[in-house]
Amino acid sequence: MGPHPAVAAIRLAVRRVLHDLLRETPHAPPPSHSPAAPAGPPAPVVLVAASGGADSMALASALAFEAPRAGLRAGAVTVDHGLQDGSAARAAEVAERLTALGLAPVDIATVTVGRDGGMEAAARSARYRALDAAADQHRAAAVLLGHTRDDQAETVLLGLARGSGLRSLSGMAAVSGGTAGRAGRYRRPFLGVDRQTTRKACLVQSLPVWDDPHNCDPSYTRSRVRHEALPVLEKALGRGVVDALARTASLARDDADALDEWAARAESAARAGDGSLEIAALAGLPPAVRRRVLRRAAVAAGAPAGSLFARHIAETDRLITDWHGQRPLNLPGRVEAARQGGRLVLRQADRGDRADR
Amino acid sequence: MGPHPAVAAIRLAVRRVLHDLLRETPHAPPPSHSPAAPAGPPAPVVLVAASGGADSMALASALAFEAPRAGLRAGAVTVDHGLQDGSAARAAEVAERLTALGLAPVDIATVTVGRDGGMEAAARSARYRALDAAADQHRAAAVLLGHTRDDQAETVLLGLARGSGLRSLSGMAAVSGGTAGRAGRYRRPFLGVDRQTTRKACLVQSLPVWDDPHNCDPSYTRSRVRHEALPVLEKALGRGVVDALARTASLARDDADALDEWAARAESAARAGDGSLEIAALAGLPPAVRRRVLRRAAVAAGAPAGSLFARHIAETDRLITDWHGQRPLNLPGRVEAARQGGRLVLRQADRGDRADR
Repeated sequence: MGPHPAVAAIRLAVRRVLHDLLRETPHAPPPSHSPAAPAGPPAPVVLVAASGGADSMALASALAFEAPRAGLRAGAVTVDHGLQDGSAARAAEVAERLTALGLAPVDIATVTVGRDGGMEAAARSARYRALDAAADQHRAAAVLLGHTRDDQAETVLLGLARGSGLRSLSGMAAVSGGTAGRAGRYRRPFLGVDRQTTRKACLVQSLPVWDDPHNCDPSYTRSRVRHEALPVLEKALGRGVVDALARTASLARDDADALDEWAARAESAARAGDGSLEIAALAGLPPAVRRRVLRRAAVAAGAPAGSLFARHIAETDRLITDWHGQRPLNLPGRVEAARQGGRLVLRQADRGDRADR
Repeated sequence: MGPHPAVAAIRLAVRRVLHDLLRETPHAPPPSHSPAAPAGPPAPVVLVAASGGADSMALASALAFEAPRAGLRAGAVTVDHGLQDGSAARAAEVAERLTALGLAPVDIATVTVGRDGGMEAAARSARYRALDAAADQHRAAAVLLGHTRDDQAETVLLGLARGSGLRSLSGMAAVSGGTAGRAGRYRRPFLGVDRQTTRKACLVQSLPVWDDPHNCDPSYTRSRVRHEALPVLEKALGRGVVDALARTASLARDDADALDEWAARAESAARAGDGSLEIAALAGLPPAVRRRVLRRAAVAAGAPAGSLFARHIAETDRLITDWHGQRPLNLPGRVEAARQGGRLVLRQADRGDRADR
């Protein structure tokens, strides 16, 4: 008799990611390699980021099962955010459970959460710093994250509420944290697995799980999306909403990638020798592409991407599409956008310039 | 003293659309032309589609004010769907109110609603057929529709629930119903105006409005979105949700247009002399563009667009990206997709072919 369908589903999801990893690093030991083999270097380790909740415990159990079969070692990191009383004891307990699953190494990373950008954002960036450090220390082949299809749907709704377009609808990537030319170290095997399946997999494997009280705290936006918005959306629109949102994320990501590719090529083609942009080359582009080119050019000139809003780009676009002798525009980061003859010039004023005005 | 801000807002929205219309038809009479002028042909008429609700009564009042100032006549059509007791009497009452606003002609179009695709879809297509007929009969320059920003947000949520990508997130177009090379006859001046403003404008102009009980009937999906889903989303995500959804629609529409443009060019470039597609030309495209090319090619070969699902396109895509000698695929509409050497052939089998298998 095979494993329970929920266990089969989580293992299959992890197996696919491990196979991707092995394909990407052709010099890794062959799948027949076993950590117990007497000679040779130890197998590369894959880490799971484990909070002790159902998603990450299911992920840890599947990794413990699949990693040796793929010639890899399974390890884990649990992060103690220090935000609740008893968090250190809880982290120790989670680490024990991970060790009992056969994972090694199992690290506890204690972090200090700042206040920048709100509690959720600060906890998130402290967590990723700790995961990065652990991955570096153990030379991990990858760090697996337990985000499920339900998390993905929530992320799309949160992005929708920003109304800032395709990228904010793209949710989380299956592979992230990469640098130029190298696929990312973070992998999300469960983006196509629903939360219910991870809970079921823990139940049938008798894995105790810990429910983070933050997940039910209505002062967190994500918690309100999970417990209030999504259930009502399902009631109004039908059961398929979570699926539809997750599918939207994946389509939106591909669409955004394609448009970025076009914009990058259009930007290169429009650049004159002096770094300015040829108006004639920009004017013929579809608005969606032209706006992306202008955003890229503004960021390249020194405007901070996070301060550059749609209205800045729209106003810059009017220098091309609705030219009637406007004055140069001031964009964030002291970047000035000016039309000069047949060219659009985006340039950062130095502090001296600014003092002169 | 100028008009109330709500009245100013609806008039401005209508004025912009009328100016667009005049710019598109340079041979229209100049704005100084008045329908009361003794000689010359009558001014072209712009019709408003009026249900008698706040949105369309506000639109009719703004059109009655702005049309003569733009050298145009204002008319209206109210559609009696015959779905409720007393609907004929109500249509007559709405027509009276429209006539009292100074609109002429005011038509009542009585339609028979079928059952195809559900009540909402059937009523919608009967309504547009009647509006088209009225527009043809009066040689109308345009038909104005009262959809507001709130309607747009609801449409985006409904599209999101389908999970079928950018087009379903694009909501309603400001201009639609056009044919090749000609802008559409349907205009939606209020896509940037919220429903509350149209209600306020009716109130301060003492216009009686009629609330369609269907709008509150929870057996209609749109009604559930309006009265259940959006309020909860606003509570979970903040007040800006309607704005964010409307902004998403507009960005998604531009993005979809750009990707369609790329796909059309890529399709032409990939076509060999015999109508097949060069695999090499398709393989280098970003997935989002390649999938659009495949969809276009399947439709061109005879597959009905509405029966062509993402899984059909994904399977066709694997003939390009994951080729291992698969058998030809059967797509809807008896279209067969086959890889033959370096070409992808999409061809409709005739009935004889099918009988032979």
